[in-house]
Amino acid sequence: MSDSSLTDSNIAVLEQPTSRRRFLRDASVTALVAGVATACKAAPAQRARTAVATMPGVTQAGDVAGAAAIRAAADAMDAMHEARMKAFPAKTAGKGCQVLDPRIEDGVKVFELTARKIKWETEPGTIVDAWAYNGQVPGPQLRVREGDRVRIVLHNQLPESTSIHFHGLEIPNAQDGVPFVTQPPIKPGQSYTYEFTAANSGSHMYHSHHDSTKQVGLGLLGAFIVAPKQPMAIERVDKDFVLILNDGMGGYTLNGKSFPATEPLVAKLGDRIRIRFMNEGTMIHPMHLHGMHMTIITKDGWPLPAPYRCDTLNVAPGDRWDAIIECNNPGTWAFHCHILPHAESDHGMFGMVTALVVQQ
Amino acid sequence: MSDSSLTDSNIAVLEQPTSRRRFLRDASVTALVAGVATACKAAPAQRARTAVATMPGVTQAGDVAGAAAIRAAADAMDAMHEARMKAFPAKTAGKGCQVLDPRIEDGVKVFELTARKIKWETEPGTIVDAWAYNGQVPGPQLRVREGDRVRIVLHNQLPESTSIHFHGLEIPNAQDGVPFVTQPPIKPGQSYTYEFTAANSGSHMYHSHHDSTKQVGLGLLGAFIVAPKQPMAIERVDKDFVLILNDGMGGYTLNGKSFPATEPLVAKLGDRIRIRFMNEGTMIHPMHLHGMHMTIITKDGWPLPAPYRCDTLNVAPGDRWDAIIECNNPGTWAFHCHILPHAESDHGMFGMVTALVVQQ
Amino acid sequence: MSDSSLTDSNIAVLEQPTSRRRFLRDASVTALVAGVATACKAAPAQRARTAVATMPGVTQAGDVAGAAAIRAAADAMDAMHEARMKAFPAKTAGKGCQVLDPRIEDGVKVFELTARKIKWETEPGTIVDAWAYNGQVPGPQLRVREGDRVRIVLHNQLPESTSIHFHGLEIPNAQDGVPFVTQPPIKPGQSYTYEFTAANSGSHMYHSHHDSTKQVGLGLLGAFIVAPKQPMAIERVDKDFVLILNDGMGGYTLNGKSFPATEPLVAKLGDRIRIRFMNEGTMIHPMHLHGMHMTIITKDGWPLPAPYRCDTLNVAPGDRWDAIIECNNPGTWAFHCHILPHAESDHGMFGMVTALVVQQ
Repeated sequence: MSDSSLTDSNIAVLEQPTSRRRFLRDASVTALVAGVATACKAAPAQRARTAVATMPGVTQAGDVAGAAAIRAAADAMDAMHEARMKAFPAKTAGKGCQVLDPRIEDGVKVFELTARKIKWETEPGTIVDAWAYNGQVPGPQLRVREGDRVRIVLHNQLPESTSIHFHGLEIPNAQDGVPFVTQPPIKPGQSYTYEFTAANSGSHMYHSHHDSTKQVGLGLLGAFIVAPKQPMAIERVDKDFVLILNDGMGGYTLNGKSFPATEPLVAKLGDRIRIRFMNEGTMIHPMHLHGMHMTIITKDGWPLPAPYRCDTLNVAPGDRWDAIIECNNPGTWAFHCHILPHAESDHGMFGMVTALVVQQ
Repeated sequence: MSDSSLTDSNIAVLEQPTSRRRFLRDASVTALVAGVATACKAAPAQRARTAVATMPGVTQAGDVAGAAAIRAAADAMDAMHEARMKAFPAKTAGKGCQVLDPRIEDGVKVFELTARKIKWETEPGTIVDAWAYNGQVPGPQLRVREGDRVRIVLHNQLPESTSIHFHGLEIPNAQDGVPFVTQPPIKPGQSYTYEFTAANSGSHMYHSHHDSTKQVGLGLLGAFIVAPKQPMAIERVDKDFVLILNDGMGGYTLNGKSFPATEPLVAKLGDRIRIRFMNEGTMIHPMHLHGMHMTIITKDGWPLPAPYRCDTLNVAPGDRWDAIIECNNPGTWAFHCHILPHAESDHGMFGMVTALVVQQ
Repeated sequence: MSDSSLTDSNIAVLEQPTSRRRFLRDASVTALVAGVATACKAAPAQRARTAVATMPGVTQAGDVAGAAAIRAAADAMDAMHEARMKAFPAKTAGKGCQVLDPRIEDGVKVFELTARKIKWETEPGTIVDAWAYNGQVPGPQLRVREGDRVRIVLHNQLPESTSIHFHGLEIPNAQDGVPFVTQPPIKPGQSYTYEFTAANSGSHMYHSHHDSTKQVGLGLLGAFIVAPKQPMAIERVDKDFVLILNDGMGGYTLNGKSFPATEPLVAKLGDRIRIRFMNEGTMIHPMHLHGMHMTIITKDGWPLPAPYRCDTLNVAPGDRWDAIIECNNPGTWAFHCHILPHAESDHGMFGMVTALVVQQ
């Protein structure tokens, strides 16, 4: 999008009143529509009134013309913002972080991963070069249970050597994935097998540990969730979401997509949900949830002895924090990184923005 | 300030011994003087002695000339540092974060906010373009009580549309302030009314949620404090300070001012004070208090189940952390962001620096 | 290192199979070798196989040539990575953070510090200009006991004035080290004496508080550890390490050295160790330990009421966090800042990387 595209005729079009109802009717996800519609019904207190004529200093013909120009510019900006909001959740090719079902061989859960170069669409029309596991950014979500025997077979179809580090998993040193310390690098065209018992539960990650600034930056990363044998009462939830924050070559993303192509988190009023925050980028991202608070229950998979509440959670590179949210406030709630340049430009919201939709 | 202004004659002036007593006599705030004077009386252990002649390698006439040149350069630098310290707390036009008394209408606390462009002086002579609520950066401090019905009337006199998000307040979705999700944008010249019950107590914020990188960056932000119905024992204090950290278009500021124009926090020996840290910028700011520790009691308004002590508190964008300090160590204590380039240059302290003055 | 140095003949040399055993035999630290050897014995699950011929699309003669070129490039990159790993721990001139024994005068522990310009080798062949206490970056480690009377005599042989702030120590204001607030600056050639009782135990720091962005950035910093009179049970350990993170003029360093010149932390299987993390830089550094978790027990020297476990610890400038590690997983474990550009480039690991070696 560029300002030069805003010709006079475009602005004229943009200035036509946009029907809120049509915006909602056109929205592609029923769940979201329901949430927003709820929000709109609940808005009796808004009493907008136009008062341009009473703006201080707006008393002359020239000032009125000035006010009209200001209004036209504001309308043009707002139209860009509206278009991005209206596009949410936008369709793009590819979906990352999908649960990968293992095959079972002699009681071992076996996951096959193939690393290769792909094109990845982060938002409609924005296609970047990525290096991916199984064609996904983030790579497929691996889910096992505490005590499971796990085998990961990596096929390297990249033009560089690689390796996988299982970030947070306490496994034998030889399976740790650090070239020239615990294994040789896996050359282009080679396959390599990791095998271990998932000894510690929690929200963990896997990613390249070779030329990692580039390889992780390009997308070689994913979630590795180990369910506990004995879940805590606090972690019994209706829905369980993974949210991988990133700021690599694909820009500011949540689960590999930028707003408006991010996926909304949809829950029902009264649901108890869990969000597993993971940061695979190079910057902090303080995630802010509107309308409800989060209770932080684990750090790096380890239960916090004193879970605490917040609405803004600073997630640093390598961190995993799990939060519980009691969805007791209906509506569509913005949910975004509070470093504002990671979330909004003068063209509207982008990057690390999604919504928690609490449906009535 | 530029180094080229340091002509030989300037240096000569700067080299005149500066009377510590005169520095104190000239200081503009009695409170501060009392603190510093205390500090000076308490300094018997300092035994400075000049030992240039015994510096290793300083044995020749040429070296003595070299040492004199080094000393002159050091004195010139120190004079710049001293001038900035001496100027603290410097007077500037405007004061942000002032408590705004509501008017009461039918039991509702009504706050009127007008957003408009202003000039804002961050330190003496440094005047920046700002967008402000009621002519203040940060905007006026709004204080209500848990359970209060609150109405905020926003008058938009900006050249852009805007909105207000009540960051941390758990209110109905329609009052959440996100254009095209919960409300239309508020156009230039329009007014808009928000109304809700302040359901959750704590240190919260309000700020623009439209074109927010720019609008919050320019100053459209403020503190929104909700006093609890039942205060905890730990939060009974003698003084209650708000400290809004920012790194927007006005540079590195505390409550909208850069050192030496920041306001010192003044307490009496034995006082128990509360500081409400809020970050409205785009970077972390680890605030370091000299001389005493802080006990961190709440995060985003929510009581921490296990308050902890520290002297350096990392505050991320969107965060609010409340700290209690037992003022048991008399003196003037530096209090600053510990990212040193946010606090000191070769011209002296600037930016995110203030002092906690504990008066005897 | 530059890519242009990789001539064809270099690549040929690099392509020779590197014996893992020779790599280990050449390693200079027996402790490390033992750890790595253990790791290698424990690696039965790795089943690398070359499969270039079966890479998708690799079916033609031209493709085979392409695959060979890719492999050659990968081998060249891997050789650079291997060389850096193999060099660890590399010898460099100078060692920072060495414990300085005080002399006792009338029951007072007296430390003499001399600040001067030095050359400092951060990794083999990389020599930077530094400003140092006693010729070390970080400066010597000062260790006293809670309640001790302490005297620090600073000799300033720098070309600038300076001062020392005792970061985290609760001492009388006059000893706080802030020029023009608590003392005059210490001029080039002068000496200055600080004296106080170490009232609060914990992991603290000392550093310049004058022109500090430059002076601390150049190396005028160190650890100041105050042992408690009554240690907590949780802090009884077999080994006690200090790890000062920095990103100043010497680049990304741990205790003043960049990988591969960083020092490994060596422990025995079953050891309980303590790591005192301190950040004297200007950025956050989330330190990630492979293979085992850490229990965080203190913040800025103050016991946490609810110690928590993690594998990634975000350390902000000015922060000190103490961690306990139960060394129950044998091997050589990577331990590094998880902002990957602080730890690895396409030439291999560098900067804020070391290893925890758990010997069997």
